[in-house]
Amino acid sequence: MKPSAPGLAIAIALALPAAAQDDPLPSWNDGESKRAIIAFVQDVTNENGDAHVDKDERIATFDNDGTLWVEQPIYTQLAFALDRVRDIAADHPDWKTTQPFQAVLDGDMEALAATGEEGLLEIVAATHGGMSTEQFAQIALDWLAEAKHPRFDKPYTRLVYQPMLELIDYLQDNDFETYIVSGGGIEFMRPWTQEVYNIPPQQVVGSSTTTEYMIVDGKPTLMRTGEIAFVDDKAGKPVGINSHIGRRPIIAFGNSDGDFQMLEYTTVGIDGPSLGAIVHHTDADREYAYDRDSPVGKLDKALDAADDNDWLVIDMKTDWKTIFPE
Amino acid sequence: MKPSAPGLAIAIALALPAAAQDDPLPSWNDGESKRAIIAFVQDVTNENGDAHVDKDERIATFDNDGTLWVEQPIYTQLAFALDRVRDIAADHPDWKTTQPFQAVLDGDMEALAATGEEGLLEIVAATHGGMSTEQFAQIALDWLAEAKHPRFDKPYTRLVYQPMLELIDYLQDNDFETYIVSGGGIEFMRPWTQEVYNIPPQQVVGSSTTTEYMIVDGKPTLMRTGEIAFVDDKAGKPVGINSHIGRRPIIAFGNSDGDFQMLEYTTVGIDGPSLGAIVHHTDADREYAYDRDSPVGKLDKALDAADDNDWLVIDMKTDWKTIFPE
Repeated sequence: MKPSAPGLAIAIALALPAAAQDDPLPSWNDGESKRAIIAFVQDVTNENGDAHVDKDERIATFDNDGTLWVEQPIYTQLAFALDRVRDIAADHPDWKTTQPFQAVLDGDMEALAATGEEGLLEIVAATHGGMSTEQFAQIALDWLAEAKHPRFDKPYTRLVYQPMLELIDYLQDNDFETYIVSGGGIEFMRPWTQEVYNIPPQQVVGSSTTTEYMIVDGKPTLMRTGEIAFVDDKAGKPVGINSHIGRRPIIAFGNSDGDFQMLEYTTVGIDGPSLGAIVHHTDADREYAYDRDSPVGKLDKALDAADDNDWLVIDMKTDWKTIFPE
Repeated sequence: MKPSAPGLAIAIALALPAAAQDDPLPSWNDGESKRAIIAFVQDVTNENGDAHVDKDERIATFDNDGTLWVEQPIYTQLAFALDRVRDIAADHPDWKTTQPFQAVLDGDMEALAATGEEGLLEIVAATHGGMSTEQFAQIALDWLAEAKHPRFDKPYTRLVYQPMLELIDYLQDNDFETYIVSGGGIEFMRPWTQEVYNIPPQQVVGSSTTTEYMIVDGKPTLMRTGEIAFVDDKAGKPVGINSHIGRRPIIAFGNSDGDFQMLEYTTVGIDGPSLGAIVHHTDADREYAYDRDSPVGKLDKALDAADDNDWLVIDMKTDWKTIFPE
C-alpha cells in the first residue's frame, strides 16, 4: 500500500529526532554541556539501562546565588540587609554614630568592610531578627517587589537564568526532586522560590538564624532571634543536604568554591551515576565575567578540580543563548 | 423504559454511599473520630467548598513514638542504645566500672536513671557517634532486623498501628504531604520509614546529632560526632517543622505532652481549617493504657487542653478495630 500524502507527512514527522521536535532546553546552545546534561537524564531515566536510578533517588541540588540568579555586584540578600538598615534607621538614632550601621548609612563600603564578620553579624541580627517568621517573609517579599538591580534596573526575581529555569523544569518532568542548597538565608528564599523557580519551601535548604516558639497575641509564633544557627556554605552544604534531604544527590549545580564540597559529595567516590556542574560566569556583556579573583562568588579551587572530577563547566557566553527570561 | 435486571443492580450499587463501597479507614470503628477525620479531608479537598486547601498547603505531621508505633515499656531507640552498649562493650573494658555504662551492663535501671540526663547523653554519644551516617543507618537497620519487643515478641517495625498506616495512605491519596515530626533521632528513623510508613527520608523531622564533613578512604562522608545538635520535642517541634518544611501543617497527630506545641502551632489562632488529634492509649489488653502518670509518653497538659482546642482524642480501645498489621 502506497502511503497517502497526509500519512507520509506524519511518517516524516515521527522520524524526526524527538529533541528537534520538543527541545527541553531551548535556551541552551547545542554543545557539550547541553548534550551531557540530556544524555545523563536519558541514562538515569532509562529503565532498561545500566545507569537507571529509581525515581525516589533522583535528587538534584542547586546553589542559588550565581547559579540560579545574579549575585553581582553584591549578593542580593546583602543589598536587602543594607536597605533594611536604611529603612529602619529612624528607629535607631544611635546608628548614626555606631559601626557597622554608620558605615551603611554613610554609604562607606570601606568602613563597612573594616567591621569584618562581626559587623556583618550585627547587621544580620538587626535586620533579620526581632520579628516572626511570617513578618520576615513579608518584609522580604515587600523589598523584592520594590528593589531593582543597580545595573539591570529590574527586580531581582527577574534576574534569574532562563537556561536554569528550563533545566529545573526538565528535571522535574523526569521525576527529579529539585532542591535549592544555598549559602543564602533559607527564610529569605522560601517566600518566592515556588513562584520563581517552581521549587516549594520544603525543598529549600539554606543558612538560618535560630527561632523561638512563643504565643504572640494568642497565636503560636516562631520569633527570629537574629542569631546565626547554621551556615549552609562550603562543608556546611553536605551537612545541610543530609539534614534536610537525608539522601545523597545525583546532580549538583554550583558556581563558586562555596559549592566545592556539595559537588564533591555528589560525585566523588560514588558507585552510581552522578553529574556535577559549574556555571562559569564568562559573559561580561550580557551578565558578568568573574572567577578566581572575585570577592563575590569566587571560583578557584572548584575550577581547578573540575577536570579531575568530570564536572561540567558551563560557559555562560557560549552555552547559553539567552541569560534572563523574556 | 423499564430498567433491565442488570441495569437495576448497577443503579442500586451506585446509590450506595462511597464509604460503604471503599472505606479508606477499614481498621477504624465507625465513630466520632473516624467521621471527623473523613469529614475534614472531604472539606479541605472539596474544590467548591469554603474550607478548600490547595494541594501544596496540605501538610500533615505525625509524631512517631506512641503515635505511629509502640513506645512502651521504653522508647525503641533507647532499647537500641542499651543493646548497642552491650554489643560494643568488649571494645570498652572500662565500661564495666564506669557509669552510666556499668548500669546498662549490670541491667540496673535504677542506677542508670540516677545518672540522669548527663548519663543519657554519654550513652547517646557512645552509641550514636563515631561512625558515618551510612554506617549508622546500617547499624540501625541491622538491629531492627534482629531485635524483638519484650512483650509482643515481634520486630519493632511490625508494632506500628494499622489504623495510622491507613490514615497516612488516605491522606497521601488526597494529595497530602505526610511528615514524621518526632523527638526520636532523625537518622534512626530515616533508614526504614519509606518501607514501613511509605514516608521518604526527606519527610522525616527528628532530633539530631551534629555531623562533620570529611573525606574517608577517598569518599566524601558525614561523620556523626554523637553531640546533640537539635532536640525535636515540645517547643522544638514547631521549630523543626519550620526548619524542614517551612509551612504550617493543617493536620497534626500526637500522643503526649511532647506534641503539645506541635498541636497548638497547627490549630490555635489559625484562619483556615486545621485538625489536631491525640492518640490516647486506653487499651491495656491489646497494647498499653497510660497517660498522666506514665514516665514514657506522658499525656497530661495536652489532654487537658484537648477540649478547648477541639483536638480529637482518639480512644484506641473503642476507635480502633485492630492495632497492628495482619
